[in-house]
Amino acid sequence: MALSTKPYKGTRDFFPEDMYLHRHIFQRLSEVIEGYGYQPYDGPMLEPFELYAAKSGQEIVEKQLYWFMDRGERKVAMRPEMTPTLARMVASRVMELPKPVRWYSIPNLWRYERPQRGRLREHWQLNVDILGGESLWADAEILRVAYSIIAAFEGQKNIKIFVNNRRLINSVFKDQLKLSAEDALKASKAVDARDKIGEEAYNKQLVEIGLSAEQIATMEDFFNSSLESAQSKFQCEGLDELTSLFKILENHPVSQVLEFNPKVMRGLDYYTGTVFEVFDVSPENNRAMFGGGRYDNLIGMFGNQTLSGVGFGMGDVTLKNFLETHKLLPDVASHIDVFFVTGNEDAIAKAAELAEPLIAAGIKTSLSLSTAKFNAQLKQANKLNAKLAIILGENELKENSATVKNLSTGEQNTLSMPINLDELKKMI
Amino acid sequence: MALSTKPYKGTRDFFPEDMYLHRHIFQRLSEVIEGYGYQPYDGPMLEPFELYAAKSGQEIVEKQLYWFMDRGERKVAMRPEMTPTLARMVASRVMELPKPVRWYSIPNLWRYERPQRGRLREHWQLNVDILGGESLWADAEILRVAYSIIAAFEGQKNIKIFVNNRRLINSVFKDQLKLSAEDALKASKAVDARDKIGEEAYNKQLVEIGLSAEQIATMEDFFNSSLESAQSKFQCEGLDELTSLFKILENHPVSQVLEFNPKVMRGLDYYTGTVFEVFDVSPENNRAMFGGGRYDNLIGMFGNQTLSGVGFGMGDVTLKNFLETHKLLPDVASHIDVFFVTGNEDAIAKAAELAEPLIAAGIKTSLSLSTAKFNAQLKQANKLNAKLAIILGENELKENSATVKNLSTGEQNTLSMPINLDELKKMI
Repeated sequence: MALSTKPYKGTRDFFPEDMYLHRHIFQRLSEVIEGYGYQPYDGPMLEPFELYAAKSGQEIVEKQLYWFMDRGERKVAMRPEMTPTLARMVASRVMELPKPVRWYSIPNLWRYERPQRGRLREHWQLNVDILGGESLWADAEILRVAYSIIAAFEGQKNIKIFVNNRRLINSVFKDQLKLSAEDALKASKAVDARDKIGEEAYNKQLVEIGLSAEQIATMEDFFNSSLESAQSKFQCEGLDELTSLFKILENHPVSQVLEFNPKVMRGLDYYTGTVFEVFDVSPENNRAMFGGGRYDNLIGMFGNQTLSGVGFGMGDVTLKNFLETHKLLPDVASHIDVFFVTGNEDAIAKAAELAEPLIAAGIKTSLSLSTAKFNAQLKQANKLNAKLAIILGENELKENSATVKNLSTGEQNTLSMPINLDELKKMI
Repeated sequence: MALSTKPYKGTRDFFPEDMYLHRHIFQRLSEVIEGYGYQPYDGPMLEPFELYAAKSGQEIVEKQLYWFMDRGERKVAMRPEMTPTLARMVASRVMELPKPVRWYSIPNLWRYERPQRGRLREHWQLNVDILGGESLWADAEILRVAYSIIAAFEGQKNIKIFVNNRRLINSVFKDQLKLSAEDALKASKAVDARDKIGEEAYNKQLVEIGLSAEQIATMEDFFNSSLESAQSKFQCEGLDELTSLFKILENHPVSQVLEFNPKVMRGLDYYTGTVFEVFDVSPENNRAMFGGGRYDNLIGMFGNQTLSGVGFGMGDVTLKNFLETHKLLPDVASHIDVFFVTGNEDAIAKAAELAEPLIAAGIKTSLSLSTAKFNAQLKQANKLNAKLAIILGENELKENSATVKNLSTGEQNTLSMPINLDELKKMI
């Protein structure tokens, strides 16, 4: 029986047109991020299972991790996120690395998920982290970077960046609501899911956790607070940090999209200070796109050293969906500069010879390698988005010349030999 | 117990300096290959197990394949080679794709191997293929591309490209030596291993296969033939093809390193015409680097369509070892253009503000985000290979200026505000 030509469920084939887009997007992101002094890194696709067992959320490890035993009985996993690899690599050189460490990566990651819009089993994720920088300045820098990568695609008008602080959330949950750590986690998860599950289910979950009507009202009051009103109601470090952060960023364009949002939770077991989420606020694509925040001691599981940081991760599918929705996808159609059309075997030999100096001069040059009818070969040139066809027929060979055809305008001219590269470049 | 910071056996971490090199090498390769009209593609890291069971060599599937059952009981494998993915993707669009299809990819591949020089469990492999092009012209083009990627790093003086033809080998094994298909396969494997196992073991293997002294002498006579002498002894299509191929390429620089070598086998079950191996012929690194050849009907396992082609694959470890041996590794040290040194919190705020227009102008700009002593911050700037330090101390803030220090020469100057970007660029 014939094998299927479909890729494995939840994964994508990247045909040339997909690759050009994928590559263009990540090259642009890299340029912007390297502008801020960030350096690229990468790690292996497989990591020891323990790396995730120790650090990743329970849901990822139990339900979404691709893991197996290798032929040497080592338990290995395909990376579901990049942070554990980042931690391992930084820990291995923590003493030598100049601080702050500014690193970014664009790994492909694997999660066993039910494929749906924006969620696939294999996706690429931009990871940007700054480690060992003083708090707030580093937080502010990461927000500037997050803003700038969206602005690089002219998408800044479609987003808001919602900011919160985990010290503030902890203070409200623990000090005001007197919730246990366990109940606080449950409540934060309910808040995270609120938009998805609806008001009724949300309230039901809070009651199930054991929150009283009064506690629910206090929470709701908190969620409806502005930064100013929160400050009069709750005194805590988190609020001071938030206020300073907004102050630091007030002259940067990011301030135009930055908004305090006490509902931003981002899971309770990882982040420790600033947390943020970049939202597409347009009616047609209203959704959280990506987020991040500050975490303490990334490298604790590797020994006694400590290093805290702030960072974010953004998936390629999310970004492409965003750019597509807002008609911001860059036009990166593949093209060939010159396509040689050949009338016989001698013409193919001639074309191969003529092509070399063109290629060396940076002109993308393709040969039909065929002696089919000129129209068939020109059709092929058009399919490849070739700009010029250089036609070598019997007459041309006899006269030691070539016919050059502009494939957009249809204009034809005679090209004398040897080909003048400067002239040819002008025609492209 | 603390977790190990080592990567999984046989894999590599790519720290920024490794990434800059890796990226530079593959960008250069991509430029050259796209110059010849080749287009990039990529596929998923996981493929159905059956894809390899059907096409890859037995050794790969039985001993080297990383495979497992996913949570939905699908048998999946981490790609050990790219050709099956290429076949699957091309088969899915075989009718629409303009021929010849010129595609290349730089996937990371996985094989369970005992790690040794040049062989790792995860490596990146450049794959270049042309499909549906007329024989020999396409073969010649692939050889030109193989030559050009080595020449792009100035390595062409250190290589030979040994060429053979499987029709010729088949003719000698089947028609001259009267070997069965099975014995021919065994004999070809012995020839492949000859340099590694030595003459004694090689001869022993031939005797074990059942070759007579006369047969061994005929084989040896064949292996010592030049193209001309072979032509007088053996008449077959393969020899005519080889002769035409050398003729086609006689005016291209590749002809300076191209050599007929009847010992090049490249496995009996895959290639069907031209086969070649690129050798490092220098005494210090004498080894086969990579190779390829012509194959029939890549896509047969997906249905009734047929498409043949020619291509090659080259591993990143092999290429890096080659470039290192010959001192051809490009110098791609990472660098920062401008590093801001700051005396107090106000200076950090000022630096963050001053940095933005620099970054927007394409100047790689990093902030210390610290108020440590200037010497400590300058040390950090040096570690990052920064070209200029812009120092903002109390005096500078008071006078609304900055001190700019060239970190190679030590020269210091006063920089007036606002920063003139053109002036600054001249200093970098």
